[in-house]
Amino acid sequence: MKISSLQSELSKKKIDIALFLNINFELNPNIFYFSGYKGSGLLAIPKNKPAFLIVSEMETTKARKYSKVKVISKPKDKRLFEILKENIAKPKTLGLEGNIFSISALKELKKNFKKIKIQDITNSCLKIREIKTKNEIQIIKKGCNITDTILQDCINKITRFKTEAQVKAYLEYKTKLQSAELSFPTIVASGKNSSMAHHLTEEDKLKNGFCVIDYGIRYKGYCTDITRTIYIGKPNKKEVQAYNLVLNAQESAIKQVKPKAKCSEIYQIAQKELKSYAKYFNHGLGHGIGANIHELPNLFLESKDILKENMVFTIEPGTYPKNFGIRIEDDVLVTKKGYEVLTKTTKKLIIKRR
Amino acid sequence: MKISSLQSELSKKKIDIALFLNINFELNPNIFYFSGYKGSGLLAIPKNKPAFLIVSEMETTKARKYSKVKVISKPKDKRLFEILKENIAKPKTLGLEGNIFSISALKELKKNFKKIKIQDITNSCLKIREIKTKNEIQIIKKGCNITDTILQDCINKITRFKTEAQVKAYLEYKTKLQSAELSFPTIVASGKNSSMAHHLTEEDKLKNGFCVIDYGIRYKGYCTDITRTIYIGKPNKKEVQAYNLVLNAQESAIKQVKPKAKCSEIYQIAQKELKSYAKYFNHGLGHGIGANIHELPNLFLESKDILKENMVFTIEPGTYPKNFGIRIEDDVLVTKKGYEVLTKTTKKLIIKRR
Repeated sequence: MKISSLQSELSKKKIDIALFLNINFELNPNIFYFSGYKGSGLLAIPKNKPAFLIVSEMETTKARKYSKVKVISKPKDKRLFEILKENIAKPKTLGLEGNIFSISALKELKKNFKKIKIQDITNSCLKIREIKTKNEIQIIKKGCNITDTILQDCINKITRFKTEAQVKAYLEYKTKLQSAELSFPTIVASGKNSSMAHHLTEEDKLKNGFCVIDYGIRYKGYCTDITRTIYIGKPNKKEVQAYNLVLNAQESAIKQVKPKAKCSEIYQIAQKELKSYAKYFNHGLGHGIGANIHELPNLFLESKDILKENMVFTIEPGTYPKNFGIRIEDDVLVTKKGYEVLTKTTKKLIIKRR
Repeated sequence: MKISSLQSELSKKKIDIALFLNINFELNPNIFYFSGYKGSGLLAIPKNKPAFLIVSEMETTKARKYSKVKVISKPKDKRLFEILKENIAKPKTLGLEGNIFSISALKELKKNFKKIKIQDITNSCLKIREIKTKNEIQIIKKGCNITDTILQDCINKITRFKTEAQVKAYLEYKTKLQSAELSFPTIVASGKNSSMAHHLTEEDKLKNGFCVIDYGIRYKGYCTDITRTIYIGKPNKKEVQAYNLVLNAQESAIKQVKPKAKCSEIYQIAQKELKSYAKYFNHGLGHGIGANIHELPNLFLESKDILKENMVFTIEPGTYPKNFGIRIEDDVLVTKKGYEVLTKTTKKLIIKRR
């Protein structure tokens, strides 16, 4: 059904074939989404013929184990696009992922397909992926459940850890034990580090003050993403007030979620509720999650996206004044008449003494 | 010194400025190599002016913490290439990473820089990176030392684990506790899974038979890469013979390492020593390691690369008949007159009963 949705799009746009190339260790979200395969190779989806994968000899057994489409094994002495050429009718227009397909790959492609027109299909794929199927929603719910369990357990033990890296290591270890992967590198930002929304967790001690933990897993291919901010030590009145403003902004934004709601308006609600802390809110309010960690819809001020049933996305307002930072993030599903919050770790300010 | 090496190359090739773009969570090896920064953003290296980074507002504090070059903060309402344009003299030729720079990014770039010529600088950068400095060698040696300690400890405990994912989780946990990252997703391939050189370690039990563990860390930005194959249960004579053939092939190949040796000839030595198992050897003999997990030199049959002092690379012959697989991999440094093996975990066949 996913492939046929794309094929309808290709027909509409007069694209003969869509190509998805992955040369990395990490999965390509579209290759995974359309074929189930998580490795490197080339996925070809012709507009009116069955899709197929081309992978190197050493990846073939693995690809056949996971792929729902036919797998062609590439002998060592042949080039990827040569094999593609042998397996398709001469196309006039190719659809590519503009933000992933490299200029070298395009050069190589054009050697085999002369006078070809190129169209970017990134957005068509994102549009198909943004509405989740029942099965996908079940997987994401289960993923959120695992994420909650691991995060809650880690927060309970937080004062055992001496460094930010130890907290990160613990979360990631528990994730891997569930045969899950990470959806992005975990952020543990304590003390002044919390004022960096994208702090790099490496060698710093776990310091007193707010501690932002931003963590997500990839469970059966689908991403989760949660942030909680706890306090180590004794917060002052101003800090508790700031926390409650962010929490209120997050909950107010969530309450706006329903089919037909405008993403830009939800952003504005959060911004308004952040009051004097809004000027330290320097990122989007949220993003779709699915086969990729950042997908549609976009919850930015300038976003034109409108919510629809079965979208899944994050809501994550934050504030980062000079000396501390706070972010609270949940994964939210749009239901028929409203919303369901899929991540359930407590949002009451947790204060840990040591 | 690294930047000035690139600038000399740019001058030779009449390239006015080199651009390195990263839109991912993972680091871009060249951005890290030339600037020390591991995050997302754009690194610009003009041929005769100081290099600079452009990063989003929310990445600025982090970038300034790590970068050795000037950091320009991009306001939300401005595009990356607009800011670039404001900060450089009008260039005629731009150098880009052909295998990373996307076709969408090129389109956007060309809006701001009309009638520009593009040259691929991937190989120039790889050539600069392939000879390691003293400092880099020290870091890689320390990384290999950590890798050995963790792997040896894991092998000692191997019979405690019930699934492949548990072995992977343990190795990765110990890595993160050292404030290190993974250089690629760990492979634990037991029983018949070992016959897939790139097995995906997810939900399978840890089965009897050969177990291939391919694991590497990124320590202070630099990659290590090691593979050991152990045996769980009781190997038969044929299996022990196969193991010893791979081990002999690996050690024979290593003995060829010295300045001026040809990579293709080292490959041929390994292939010859694999004897009847050579037909199941379906990948390269090795690859350079450094800021990236796969870099120069290439130890393939068709490689034209010649070894030089202070190169660091893997030597990893393997064989994958239908029912099992064996691979043994070390990281090797080319010294003035020969070689030094940097990974020291035992290669004697370890047999574990349970």
